[in-house]
Amino acid sequence: MHRFYAPDIETVNLLPEEEAQHCVRVLRLKEGDQVEVVDGKGHLFLCEIVSANHKNCAVSIVEKTDVAPHWGCRLTVVIAPTKNIDRFEWMLEKSVEMGVDRIIPVLCRYSERKQLKTERLNKILVSAMKQSLKATLPQLDELTPVMDVINSVGKDGQRFIAYCDKEIPRRDLVKEYKKGSDVVIMIGPEGDFSKEEIRAALDAGFVPVTLGKSRLRTETAGVFAVAAVHTINQL
Amino acid sequence: MHRFYAPDIETVNLLPEEEAQHCVRVLRLKEGDQVEVVDGKGHLFLCEIVSANHKNCAVSIVEKTDVAPHWGCRLTVVIAPTKNIDRFEWMLEKSVEMGVDRIIPVLCRYSERKQLKTERLNKILVSAMKQSLKATLPQLDELTPVMDVINSVGKDGQRFIAYCDKEIPRRDLVKEYKKGSDVVIMIGPEGDFSKEEIRAALDAGFVPVTLGKSRLRTETAGVFAVAAVHTINQL
Repeated sequence: MHRFYAPDIETVNLLPEEEAQHCVRVLRLKEGDQVEVVDGKGHLFLCEIVSANHKNCAVSIVEKTDVAPHWGCRLTVVIAPTKNIDRFEWMLEKSVEMGVDRIIPVLCRYSERKQLKTERLNKILVSAMKQSLKATLPQLDELTPVMDVINSVGKDGQRFIAYCDKEIPRRDLVKEYKKGSDVVIMIGPEGDFSKEEIRAALDAGFVPVTLGKSRLRTETAGVFAVAAVHTINQL
Repeated sequence: MHRFYAPDIETVNLLPEEEAQHCVRVLRLKEGDQVEVVDGKGHLFLCEIVSANHKNCAVSIVEKTDVAPHWGCRLTVVIAPTKNIDRFEWMLEKSVEMGVDRIIPVLCRYSERKQLKTERLNKILVSAMKQSLKATLPQLDELTPVMDVINSVGKDGQRFIAYCDKEIPRRDLVKEYKKGSDVVIMIGPEGDFSKEEIRAALDAGFVPVTLGKSRLRTETAGVFAVAAVHTINQL
């Protein structure tokens, strides 16, 4: 059954314009057809189309189900957007598929990318949420300076900063992460975090980690970290 | 220092044509400059350019180091190439970065892609090997029918088949994989393995697994499985 995203479906029984267009013009669904709708807030609605025309698509809600994130902890990835935006988009899509709660694009001293079109990236999150049968849209922050992130996020759970600089001792993320813990993982840009950024994070209580012996691109590091958390949570 | 791939560097002290072009014309390296060369067989050579012109680039070997794969087990991914080749190429690149020994593209009943240009894919493997500072080029098989794979690979280690079909009981890959084991993981196409293919694999001794509660695209499943093995091997 086709699945649509409509954050306000309970108050406004219409599919948003783009979803309606796709529903009516592309998929050619009509009155009486059933569709699934997610609101991005953890709810899945079985709906029936009550009217469908070229302008909009109205539905009635048949059933509402809770579809909470299944991984039992809050996972936040803080990551420097890559110069090549495709790579960053790929990382976002894969993180949503595997399961992530919040993504904070971070601006660092050695950041290759200093601007971000968050609206376009949100579409990727929505698409990945629907494709992977989730009902909760991860929070995607605006591009945030690293010092602001260091001083504000995840104080109730574990916080890790992953970097390549071998001069500052690191532990293994996979050994440090405690199954079921809320967690924030920070991953730096292509040129790594600066020594000052690393020290500021450590001073704020972040645990310094390596993701293993392989040298990973930024976007690969993001995906590996998410996969590692989910792997440990399944053990 | 710049790194090049030259499988025959010990016998023919020349960089292959494409590498030579890049070295001489793009990077403008010259006599006396030092470069790193990997042979794809686990060796890293520190070399010095002895002559560089528009046709070729000759080097002398200064030092040879062994750079064996660091993950201590043989990891084989058997995966159905995706309809969208970009997605498959991402999966290959990310798998090489994290560490993989052999990739077998597999042809299944519900395969969306039934042809593959292995030569082009090998370039991606070479590039990822160089970028991730490895010296061993993973083996990339030709597209192989699934029954041939089932009957031939990995009998000395663990063998897993991952699928979505809920009617045939599955265990959790992350709980089943034994740290340090050689392992083969099979991942099916967008439409999943057929029931016959699953049963044939189980009859041949493959362990049926799920990668977790998230529904992953084929290429994401491949990357997740590789990441999970590396995560467990680091514990």
